[in-house]
Amino acid sequence: MTTNSTGSADRAQEPSDQEFTVRRATAEDIPGLVAMLADDALGARRETPSDLDPYRAAFDRIDADANQHLVVAELRGTMAGTLHLTIIPGLSRRGAVRSLIEAVRIHADFRGSGLGTRLIEWAVAESRRQGCALVQLTSDATRVDAHRFYERLGFQASHLGFKMPLD
Amino acid sequence: MTTNSTGSADRAQEPSDQEFTVRRATAEDIPGLVAMLADDALGARRETPSDLDPYRAAFDRIDADANQHLVVAELRGTMAGTLHLTIIPGLSRRGAVRSLIEAVRIHADFRGSGLGTRLIEWAVAESRRQGCALVQLTSDATRVDAHRFYERLGFQASHLGFKMPLD
Repeated sequence: MTTNSTGSADRAQEPSDQEFTVRRATAEDIPGLVAMLADDALGARRETPSDLDPYRAAFDRIDADANQHLVVAELRGTMAGTLHLTIIPGLSRRGAVRSLIEAVRIHADFRGSGLGTRLIEWAVAESRRQGCALVQLTSDATRVDAHRFYERLGFQASHLGFKMPLD
Repeated sequence: MTTNSTGSADRAQEPSDQEFTVRRATAEDIPGLVAMLADDALGARRETPSDLDPYRAAFDRIDADANQHLVVAELRGTMAGTLHLTIIPGLSRRGAVRSLIEAVRIHADFRGSGLGTRLIEWAVAESRRQGCALVQLTSDATRVDAHRFYERLGFQASHLGFKMPLD
């Protein structure tokens, strides 16, 4: 078990349950969450950490919706990751409820620590707890490391993900 | 403009606005919707049109959620297609709202009629009306014709879609 977070050897170990927690995000988390979203090859072009107003408005809408679970992963009390889990009822697959994972980020200080695995495992367990028959996500075609990561966790790249930005 | 729906030559034409409508699904639509979901190479293995109970329970949950838009496309008053549009608030991309299209089906009698194009165009327009910055969907890797269809409509296959069924 690790006792500090400064050494790369320590970071290579899996965090223990005592050190790792997932909690619902609060409005106070917004600056830290946006910083993580922006600290990413794709996110850097999409996010504006210097202007948090649109994020605050979005947070209020997310927080008011019982099907949205924007969460913060903490390692030894420090914000270390985030994801957004959406619960989606549906008619297909015999009325299956599915969940969608979006906006997965691990703080740069904690990458390679096993935290991403723990966080996705949390999302899968939470989806199961909420009665979902399926968990799904899309990953940009350029994120080859992420694809291997999700496949190791038991996801299958069975689909193509299509997107269309609107003006 | 077509005046009947029986000839294949007529079906190859685009339906006019007067003939094509999209409306919110009602509980009375469930048998027809499930029949369409099941009448599909993949859906045939997943759906149970002979047991509608799970679909009725799912419908009630969908219908009670303001972010879920399960719709019926009608051509000259006949159920001809369906899709399920989900509106998802989010923090990433400067607090962008996105929409997710799922469970797209066109009734066998109306395939090749241009109805699919109209229905997806409706979903994109509705997403825009609801303030979405992005529309997304996934399509099974085996549905090669569907991929070309979505690309023609302006979607980009920029992502891989990962799924994990839960027990």
